[in-house]
Amino acid sequence: MERGGLDPILGELTFIGLGLFDELGISLRGLEEAKKADYVYAELYTSLMGGLSIESLQNLIGKEVHVVDRRLMEDESGEPILEKAEESRVVLLVPGDPLIATTHIDLRLRAERRGIRTRVVHAASILSAATGLSGLQNYRFGRNVTIPFPEPGFVYETPYEVIRENRGRDLHTLCFLDIRVEEGRFMTVKEGLEALLKVEEEKKLGVVTPRSLAVGVARVGSDNAVVKADYVERLMGYNFGPPPHTLIIPAGRLHFVEAEALITLAGAPAEIREMVT
Amino acid sequence: MERGGLDPILGELTFIGLGLFDELGISLRGLEEAKKADYVYAELYTSLMGGLSIESLQNLIGKEVHVVDRRLMEDESGEPILEKAEESRVVLLVPGDPLIATTHIDLRLRAERRGIRTRVVHAASILSAATGLSGLQNYRFGRNVTIPFPEPGFVYETPYEVIRENRGRDLHTLCFLDIRVEEGRFMTVKEGLEALLKVEEEKKLGVVTPRSLAVGVARVGSDNAVVKADYVERLMGYNFGPPPHTLIIPAGRLHFVEAEALITLAGAPAEIREMVT
Repeated sequence: MERGGLDPILGELTFIGLGLFDELGISLRGLEEAKKADYVYAELYTSLMGGLSIESLQNLIGKEVHVVDRRLMEDESGEPILEKAEESRVVLLVPGDPLIATTHIDLRLRAERRGIRTRVVHAASILSAATGLSGLQNYRFGRNVTIPFPEPGFVYETPYEVIRENRGRDLHTLCFLDIRVEEGRFMTVKEGLEALLKVEEEKKLGVVTPRSLAVGVARVGSDNAVVKADYVERLMGYNFGPPPHTLIIPAGRLHFVEAEALITLAGAPAEIREMVT
Repeated sequence: MERGGLDPILGELTFIGLGLFDELGISLRGLEEAKKADYVYAELYTSLMGGLSIESLQNLIGKEVHVVDRRLMEDESGEPILEKAEESRVVLLVPGDPLIATTHIDLRLRAERRGIRTRVVHAASILSAATGLSGLQNYRFGRNVTIPFPEPGFVYETPYEVIRENRGRDLHTLCFLDIRVEEGRFMTVKEGLEALLKVEEEKKLGVVTPRSLAVGVARVGSDNAVVKADYVERLMGYNFGPPPHTLIIPAGRLHFVEAEALITLAGAPAEIREMVT
């Protein structure tokens, strides 16, 4: 299809969330839209979908799925996708709910500025899934934070500071753990806690200590998701199994239902009932 | 099927998220699980799914869907559902992502205590969907808050206070707007802003004024979702159309990509670029 300079843009770009864990996380609307597309791309480096098979995804959608890497999305600013989207129906499949990562918002902006219509089909996100599974109340979460892999000779204090601020306001903190899909590196609950304890050793403010309560979550969205609450020193020895992992640091005080949920659903020690206000 | 007192519990209760707007918001895994169930219940009073048809849902799943009301879920503590779940496979369909509402966490707790195995199938939530659509960065959101319908002679200050705290830490605030499905009452963006301005009139702290930037979001997950950013005084005159509506009060400062996203994707005035730090 040839386009002259003055032709209107006929294409569109639809961001479709893949949801959690594997190809069954997509919504019915998402699958319907993907089937109607001329071209289907998938970006799979911003999150780990542990059970996803491109082959199964292709079979479901009934067409080829082109996996795009960080280079295409960031160094090339998604240009090949935008070019296709100027004259055809293009879908970009994204882990979780789309538009959480800046990369996707940026691509959407560049598409709109070129006159390409964009749409979004939502899906489950670790954001609400992990908080819901923990039994902690959603409106008691402060801002979330990512714990990056440590760099030699440098202690990154931001996650600790965010937890400190949140706890100061009696709020829980959801901590995303670093993932580097291309390198096959996925931070574990233990590594996340180690990074926090390292800052605690320096600052000694009692924000995250071996006796703090913490909640680890693994493989949310899969049939073998794990949610385990315990004191940091014990949680570090718990085997959460394969990635991805997520970490929650609760507030210093719990509501009654929160404590009961952590005990019944996440195996927390019964004495956390003393944290109930 | 008769059960003696010593028989093991054979049933299970699976909470399945319906996602956003209509029956196409459910995930493929959710639909698969619902099809395998002996009994399917749906709770539809904690959120409004504007396009949902029970008939279409029943056709999709291929079995009857029993809609449960607040009375059954709260006054009767979901007892009829738990009884069925002791000896059969029961599914409870829930708007959005399950386990955000305390009612569901509570039901899950009571099920587990009776030895009923529970599982969760996630779906899109307004929580990540609304923040993603706004173009504002997820990690810059503080705790969220619900703005309730005003009671005569009483000014409810909590939402204002939460926004004030969040803005003090340079964070955005996601405000859920009250819905009373049984009464057919759904708070609009305009009503939410009015409630905040009423507190502002009393407190005069400059937290939400007619010249503050705000973002209204309507019908997230539908094909005609609306996202509109403008100053409060102008946003109050904007027609967002049918419910549900959601409101975001951004921080006082914006990142470059946030400002560009609000201008390009939400029609914000170009001078908000001055808010970029």
